[in-house]
Parts: sequence; structure tokens; C-alpha cells
Amino acid sequence: MASKSKIDISEYSKNFPKSKKHYTKGSSNHINVPSRVIEQSPTIIDGKKKQNNKPIYVYDTTGLYTDENYEVDILKGLRPIRENWILNRGDVVSSKRNKKIWRTKNKKNSQIDGKLKDVVVAKPNQNVSQMHYAKNGIITEEMEFAAIRENVNPNNTSINITPEFVRDEIASGRAIIPSNINHPELEPMVIGKNFLTKVNANIGNSPVKSDIEEEVDKLLWAVRWGADTVMDLSTGKNLYETRERIIRNSPVPIGTVPIYEALERVNGKPEDLDYEVFRQILIEQAEQGVDYFTIHSGVRLGYIPKTMDRLTGIVSRGGSIIAKWCLAHHKENFLYTNFDDICQIMKSYNVCFSLGDGLRPGSISDANDDAQFSELETLGELTKYSWQHDVQVMIEGPGHVPIHKIKENVIKEQEICMDAPFYTLGPLVTDIAPGYDHITSAIGAANIGSFGTSVLCYVTPKEHLGLPNKDDVKDGLIAYKIAAHAADISKGHPSAQYRDDALSKARFEFRWEDQFNLGLDPYKSRDMHDETLPQESAKVAHFCSMCGPHFCSMKITQDIRDYANKKGLEDYTVAINFGLDEKSLEFKKLGKEIYIKK
Amino acid sequence: MASKSKIDISEYSKNFPKSKKHYTKGSSNHINVPSRVIEQSPTIIDGKKKQNNKPIYVYDTTGLYTDENYEVDILKGLRPIRENWILNRGDVVSSKRNKKIWRTKNKKNSQIDGKLKDVVVAKPNQNVSQMHYAKNGIITEEMEFAAIRENVNPNNTSINITPEFVRDEIASGRAIIPSNINHPELEPMVIGKNFLTKVNANIGNSPVKSDIEEEVDKLLWAVRWGADTVMDLSTGKNLYETRERIIRNSPVPIGTVPIYEALERVNGKPEDLDYEVFRQILIEQAEQGVDYFTIHSGVRLGYIPKTMDRLTGIVSRGGSIIAKWCLAHHKENFLYTNFDDICQIMKSYNVCFSLGDGLRPGSISDANDDAQFSELETLGELTKYSWQHDVQVMIEGPGHVPIHKIKENVIKEQEICMDAPFYTLGPLVTDIAPGYDHITSAIGAANIGSFGTSVLCYVTPKEHLGLPNKDDVKDGLIAYKIAAHAADISKGHPSAQYRDDALSKARFEFRWEDQFNLGLDPYKSRDMHDETLPQESAKVAHFCSMCGPHFCSMKITQDIRDYANKKGLEDYTVAINFGLDEKSLEFKKLGKEIYIKK
Repeated sequence: MASKSKIDISEYSKNFPKSKKHYTKGSSNHINVPSRVIEQSPTIIDGKKKQNNKPIYVYDTTGLYTDENYEVDILKGLRPIRENWILNRGDVVSSKRNKKIWRTKNKKNSQIDGKLKDVVVAKPNQNVSQMHYAKNGIITEEMEFAAIRENVNPNNTSINITPEFVRDEIASGRAIIPSNINHPELEPMVIGKNFLTKVNANIGNSPVKSDIEEEVDKLLWAVRWGADTVMDLSTGKNLYETRERIIRNSPVPIGTVPIYEALERVNGKPEDLDYEVFRQILIEQAEQGVDYFTIHSGVRLGYIPKTMDRLTGIVSRGGSIIAKWCLAHHKENFLYTNFDDICQIMKSYNVCFSLGDGLRPGSISDANDDAQFSELETLGELTKYSWQHDVQVMIEGPGHVPIHKIKENVIKEQEICMDAPFYTLGPLVTDIAPGYDHITSAIGAANIGSFGTSVLCYVTPKEHLGLPNKDDVKDGLIAYKIAAHAADISKGHPSAQYRDDALSKARFEFRWEDQFNLGLDPYKSRDMHDETLPQESAKVAHFCSMCGPHFCSMKITQDIRDYANKKGLEDYTVAINFGLDEKSLEFKKLGKEIYIKK
Repeated sequence: MASKSKIDISEYSKNFPKSKKHYTKGSSNHINVPSRVIEQSPTIIDGKKKQNNKPIYVYDTTGLYTDENYEVDILKGLRPIRENWILNRGDVVSSKRNKKIWRTKNKKNSQIDGKLKDVVVAKPNQNVSQMHYAKNGIITEEMEFAAIRENVNPNNTSINITPEFVRDEIASGRAIIPSNINHPELEPMVIGKNFLTKVNANIGNSPVKSDIEEEVDKLLWAVRWGADTVMDLSTGKNLYETRERIIRNSPVPIGTVPIYEALERVNGKPEDLDYEVFRQILIEQAEQGVDYFTIHSGVRLGYIPKTMDRLTGIVSRGGSIIAKWCLAHHKENFLYTNFDDICQIMKSYNVCFSLGDGLRPGSISDANDDAQFSELETLGELTKYSWQHDVQVMIEGPGHVPIHKIKENVIKEQEICMDAPFYTLGPLVTDIAPGYDHITSAIGAANIGSFGTSVLCYVTPKEHLGLPNKDDVKDGLIAYKIAAHAADISKGHPSAQYRDDALSKARFEFRWEDQFNLGLDPYKSRDMHDETLPQESAKVAHFCSMCGPHFCSMKITQDIRDYANKKGLEDYTVAINFGLDEKSLEFKKLGKEIYIKK
């Protein structure tokens, strides 16, 4: 038995202030879609209750951790809510794990319970990808779950995100549901330009710092602050164990970059890689339940010289591993030449491709260059090819792009990759602010999202400088939740502005507690308010620290409304007409008899 | 005598790491334009020095505080560098201050030395505005100073920002140089869409918190972190004294909202205001040296009812004061009916209008509505009128605007106000993140800047919640320096990308110290790096904490370059052709003999 987890789960099992877990039932009892309901206080004007304010529903990525009826056990993992969905389809078989390699290399440091659960794999000649079902007209539980989840605002009857709509989007390749059949703990979600913009958080240890529990802690922290997907980018020791613990405890899709582990297996020498090593790792990770793989099949040998004159060459770790291999062997990228075989693995577990942008720019100087767009052309080819296998695909994008060059990235991706979901890192819109790249890149992310990018991979303040701690993870996530939400409003997602309007109404009515609770970070906004006005009475006061108690613009607006109610709206109509008629400047005082009826 | 200043000046007199004050001489010895030069270390490859890296020049708002040859005295104020320029033009006369009112009301709490310096005012029938000089073909010292200042990159010979270009922009109204003749301490700068995007920081005490020295401290802190202009929005006690101390110590233009002080004079009751009280304050503040006034002349009576159905009514403090006055008296806005007289005052001191947007939206729900754009129409009329007086004008804008509605704001402003500089607050692109509104609004600011907005008024993390402390001021400024710089790159300012490219080169070459020093916040980026790798040796290491010492994508790129240099570029040309020709997928391994010449 492994030792007891040292993660303090109480931090995660407590919901946000005035918030409760809510489940919306689907067409069967097995489909229960989570959301978070935030209770509001009534509107008070002049000491009298004027109206009740409806509770507000928000998208919830926190998983069972915030379900007060669920008992969390980190060592055991989450309840496998999808298990029956998968088994009932009748197209998988049980199998022992293919785990020779990790066992041999890591037995000394293993922190995993000796009994790993068995896995499932598609029966011979079966394809368990969601795209395969979708193309065959089947609406899976995953599709229904994801559809319900998109309808955040229950009061909006104009929303039309049905399970059939989700199925159709997946069949066309415009959307994906990352959901490995070996990750039954997952709460499914859909990625695509016609859905809410999603946010990815990267975690993972590195050779200079490594601790399995710390990474699981980061996972729980990330989903608490809104991560829709999480990538485990570990490159240090205990890769298999770290990943196992992460997946078993993750309610969101987990992505990896398998070439990182492949490189560890060949002792860090890219030239010693080969497809057999890589293939073995793909299978092992698919068995563990990884939901999407970043694979750099688009870094073709012929494109490498195109990076020679760049200011910052190749900055993608995966891209540079492949480039080094290609040059060392004078051969075409083995991830390109073996793409057919990789597709076979992907469809046996429903792993999605996240086709890597190994030649993405590492500075705004290199944005939108020939190397970058050449690779994109190849990603378009590979998209077509994987769709022939009914394998789900998303496309990775930059990186570092100035504002005026952002739109071109989305237009080209949509055209070349036929609307396959776009998944970008930032992009940073300037390179002059190390320490603040969550901001430089949130600007780019909001823009690229507003043009239809489906997933925004976060950047933390530590980017380019060091390994993010929990504060950095949170700062990165909040910046990206802002960017994604701003994009959703801009692209007109029918649920998006609902939360903004509720918060603005609370703000205008001086419902301070509601203003805190409806925001992305209730704790921080409350602390900031209390820094100037700590008294509990200030939380119901009809003023704030900016103008003080004796004058308030919001209060004056209320006075104006009251005045209008008293005087009647007729006066105002006259006043409006006056305003419109009176186009030229007259420098004299006007008497009220001119335009206000008695 | 006032007591000694309690501000610790050593914090401000020390320049940034590896940075020195540099002065570029103009056409006379009296014109010395500051910039900051950041020294770089040489490029080292494989232990050998490969090349020296030129020092990088950056725009400098820190004033004489970072001049090692200048001795700072907060109580005395900065050296009046413009004094002779103003006097030598021969169009001003000396005058005693008009200070009855503040003296009476504030004598108990006065912290100012009893002897206030005398002031200047235009001679009768003279107009001392920069626009007046510009229209008459005169290139003032201010124009030349500002022109030189815009040419940040001394190596870029294609830059064409000449004093004559600045004069022409000012004559046309497309640009302004805020520079009151009573603020001789000012280092002039130019605001307009064809120049670098500028950032404004708001400071000022409030009724719940007030301390003159603290506000001066914030001013020094703000210019240290890049504020191009500062607004003193004080509403508490000691308004005159606070402003006096701020202006005497400010190297950047100072703006105010005079209606705030007017309201204090009538004990906080908007309905007791009248033009005489307001006029008195305009004159007093103009004598002190305020460089621009926010005046809400566009809030016409007829527009007020248009705010009735808004989610958040009127949120501008100035706008609501005027609205309340208009309704209480059933009269047209006295700032509109007396606009002619206000222009007379403005041109006697060269104070610029910042025509206030009293009806700006307070939530994204209210963005771009009829109330907002009706007021903008009136601001267009007033722009024309003030240009007839040769008075400089900029136009204030929102506020809260979702991404897809930002562009319309700029297009309308440029059309209606004939390209008068646009000056916006943010805008916030979503309302769901109190505590992070420096980020929600930096997204909007970068966008609106990229369309040609000239000044971005910062928003701090405390917006909507409390009064910003020094950390908040810095966080707001950094977010806005990012936004402004991203906008400058996007709109193609010839100097903008120079700093990005230098930093990216340093990053790629593992010149850690240079990477820190070239960024907006050298201290924070260094601290973040050292959090993971504190050893001094890591600062010259050719790796970072993200990948560790054994693998690095940037190192691999260097290997690829070395390889190419060894093998010759010819091989690569063949490889490129291979990449372009080979458009279809072939799932077989390719031998090197196919495409690499022996």
C-alpha cells in the first residue's frame, strides 16, 4: 500500500462562497451534468426589498471534489462515472497493462499501489473514437453530457446546443470530445469553435524539481480555478506514476507530449529515438487513459532550414527533438512516415490528436513566417488523413504573435485544417514583459479566441523564467478564464453575457457580497474591498471607498430614476426631443419653461 | 516652513539595473531630451565571445529623479526646464495667485510652504496654446522636444518624426502637447494616433483616505513605472495643497477633473453648483499648472433620459454630478452653455481639454448605446468649437466594451471628432473579474490602442473595490505599458519592435541578465528566475528550469545552425525543395541519398 496522500483535500472539497453543486439530469439516470449555482441576495432600495435575484449558474470544472455527498480518496482516484457507458457499447475488451518498461526503470521510486487496474481496448477492427460514433449517427452519453454542459444559462430558451448538434459537429470534425476509454473518471466536455472557449493548464515536474503529490495538488488546484483540460508535461523522474495519479484523479481531459517520455527512455539523446520506442509509449499512455497526445508529425525535414534565419529558431521542445533527429539521420520525421500506424492506436482508445506546432514562432519577430505556415499545411494534410480513420483532431498554434497578425493565424488554420478545432498557446503580443506573460498572452488569447480558437493554453507569470507554483497556476488560469470569456462574449455565445450582467446589476445595486461571489475570484475581490473598508457594515453600504459616503455616481443615477418615476416619463420624452432637435451651440441659459411641461 | 518630506527618494533616484540616463540634444542647448540606455552583455557561444550587443534605448518618463547629477528636493519641486522657453516667447505676464478660497478653507491643514511662487498668464488678447503656435507655423521647443522623444530607436534611420511633423499634427488637431505655461517642470510629450501610445495613471486621495505625501509618493512611483501622464482625482481634503505638491514634482502632464473640487466647495451638493464656482476653480487650477482638464460639457440635458433603461445608468462621477444638476434646475448643462468662456481660460494658460465622457457605459451591457454615442456627437461639436479658439482637445472614451464592439468606438470617434486624440479608460472586455480588472481592461486597451487610440488610462486591480496602493499602481501600469506597446507594434510604430527583438535575442542566447534588464520589470523577472534556480551560475547557464540542463530546445536550434554551417547551406536548399515538392503523404522511410547531396 502506498502511504496516505499528503494533499489537504479540505481546500478542494469546500465550494466557493454561496455556491452549491448542481446536477442536470440527462435522458438517463447515468447522465448527471455538473454546474455551480451561486445564490444571490435581494435588491434593497431605501431599506426596502425591491426584488429577489435569481441564482446564477456557472460552468463547473471542479469535478466531484466539490460534491458534498462524495468522499474524496486521492489514492483510490475518482468514481469512474463513464465505466458503464463504455462497457455497454460492447466494442471493447479487457486487457492487462503493457508496462514492462516503466516497472523496470522506476521500481525504486514507485509511489503507486502495486495493483494497477486493468484496462480496456477496442476489439479487433473496432473503432471507439467519438468521431466514429458520430459519423454513424450515434449520440453517445459523452455527447449528451457535453451538450447539456454548454447550456450554462438555464433561463435562456434561445440556446440550441442539443446532443444532436454536438454529434453533428463531431462528425464534421469541427469539434472533438477528448475521452479516452481508459479515463472513465472524466466528465466529458466538447471543444470546437461553436462552443464555449476552453482553457488548458499545463502542469508537470521537471528534472530540476519533481514530486508526484505536488503535481496532483496542482491538478486539483487547476480544476478548481477553471481548467477545462490539463496537460501533464512532466520530463523528470517517475513519469508513469505521476501520470497515473493525475489521470485517476482528473475530472478533465489530460493531454501529454509522448515524445518527452520517449526522450527519457533514450537517455535524453534525440538521435537515439526511433518509432518503436515512441510506439511503445503511445500504447502505455493510451492504456493509462491519456485523452489527447501532442504529436509533432508536421515538422518535416524540408521545413527545418526555413527556421535558420529566425531570431529565435525552434522553441518547441517537441519540434526541436524531431528536428535534431531528422538532421542526425538525414531522414524524414518518423512521426510523419508512421502517421498511419499512430492513427490505428488512437482509434483503439479514443485518444485525440493535438497536432503539434513544432515550428511555432518563439518571438513576435518570427510570427507568421514560412516555417510556421509550411508546417500548418502539413497539419492540414494530416487532419484529412486522420479523419479518414475517424480519429479526432485539434491543431496547435502559436505562441508569439503581434496583434495585427493574429487573425491570419485563425483564418489559415480554419481553411487549411477544415475547421478542426484550433488550440493556441497565448499568443504573447509582445516580448518585453517577462514576469507578466500571463497578461501579454491573455491579450493575444482573447483576440485569437474571438476569431474562433477553441482552446487557449494558459501561460503563467513564470513563463520563460521558472517553474510555476500554485499562485502562478492560479494567476495564469484567471487571466485565461478572462480571455476565454471575453472571446465567448465577442463571438456571441448565447450563455456568455449572462454572468456579466448579473454581476453588473449587483455592482450597481451595491450588493457587495453578490459582486464578490459572482466574480472569478470571490476571495481576492473581497480581500481587496476590505483592505480599504474592512467593516462588515461596508458590505451593505450604498457607497464604496472610491467616492466615499457623501457622493456616489451610482446613487445619483438612482436618484435620477426616482425623479423620473415621480415626474412621469412624459417630461423625459420632451427632453429627449429637445436633445435631438438642438444641434447647434447656444451660449445662453435656457429656462425650464422651454422644454418641461408643467 | 513645511516639515521635511517623508518620502524616501533613494527608491526613485536609483536607475534600473544596467541603465543610465541619456540626453539627446536638440537644436539649442536648452533642449535635452531624456531616454534610458540599457547596457547589454556580449553573445557567448561555446564559451567564446561571438559578438557585442548594442545598448538599447527606451522611452523614459522618470524625469530628473533618475538623473545622477540632479539633487532632488520634494519640498522645492523639480527644476523648471521650460521656464525660459515660456518667458522668451514674450506673450505672458506675471501675476499673483487667485487663491482666496482654498486659503480660507484649508489653512488649518496646510502642508505647503507659505510662499507660493507667482504665476504667468497670457497677455491680453494673446493665445499661448501650442495649437495656436502650430497653426501660425511656429515650431516651439515643446514640439521639438516631443519629436526627438518619439524617436526611441537611434539606429532606425527610417523614422520620420520631425519637429515639423509634430507641428503639423498639432495644427491639424490630430495631436496635442499638454503643457500649461505654469508647469515649467514638465518634460513635454506628444499625444496623437501617429505617435507612441501613451499611458495615464490616476492617483489622488479620497474622503476615506487622504495624505498629501502619499499621493506625491504615488506620482513618483507612477512615473518610475512608465506613466506618461497622471491625473490627480483627489476628492478629499487639502485639494489645493495636494495638487500643488504633485505638479511641482511632476515631470509628466497632470490632469484633473475640476468639477470634483467644485463639488467640495458646495459641500457635496450638485444642485448648489453654478458656473461661477466652477470658473473660479478652473482659474486657480490653471494657475497651479494643471495641463489638462476633464470637462463634461457633452452631458446634455436631453441625453440623460437615454440612460434610464441602462443596466448601470451613469457611472462617470462627473457625468452624474452634471446630470443631477441639470435635472434639479431643469436647465441645460452649464459646462455646455459656458463653453465659450471656458475656451478663453484654456488658451490663456495652454490647458488642454479632455472632453469627458460622462455617459460612458458602466458595464458591457451598456456599451455603444444611444446615450454614449449621442454625447460623442456633442463632443464632436465642441471639438470644432475649441479648435476655432486654437485650444487643444482630446476626447475621453469608455469604459466597458466587449471585444467585438471596440472598433466601432474608434471609428466613430475619429469621424465625429475629426481625429482629435482619443483617450479611453480600458475598456474592460468583461465584467466578471473584479480584482483582475487591470487584465480585463488591458485586453480592451491593447485592442483599442491598435486601432489608433492615443492614451490608455490605466485600471488597477482594485478598480470597483477599493483605493489602489503602490503595488496596485505598479500592476496597473505594467499591464498598460504592455497594452500600449502591443498597440504600437500592431499599428506599426517604427520604434516599437526594437526592444522586443533585443529581448528575444537575449533570451535565445541565454543572456539571462540582459533578458531581465530589457524587460518592463527587471526586478520581478529576476526574482521569478531565482525562485527555481537561485545560484548565480544559473544566470550564465545555457539552460533554464523548464527543461533542465540535459535538454534544451534553444540549444538544439543552435546545434542545427552549427550543423548547417558545417555542412554548407547547399544541402539545405535541396532539403527545402524537397519539402515544397513533396505534397502528398508517403508512409515509407526515405533514404538520405534521395535528397542530401554527397
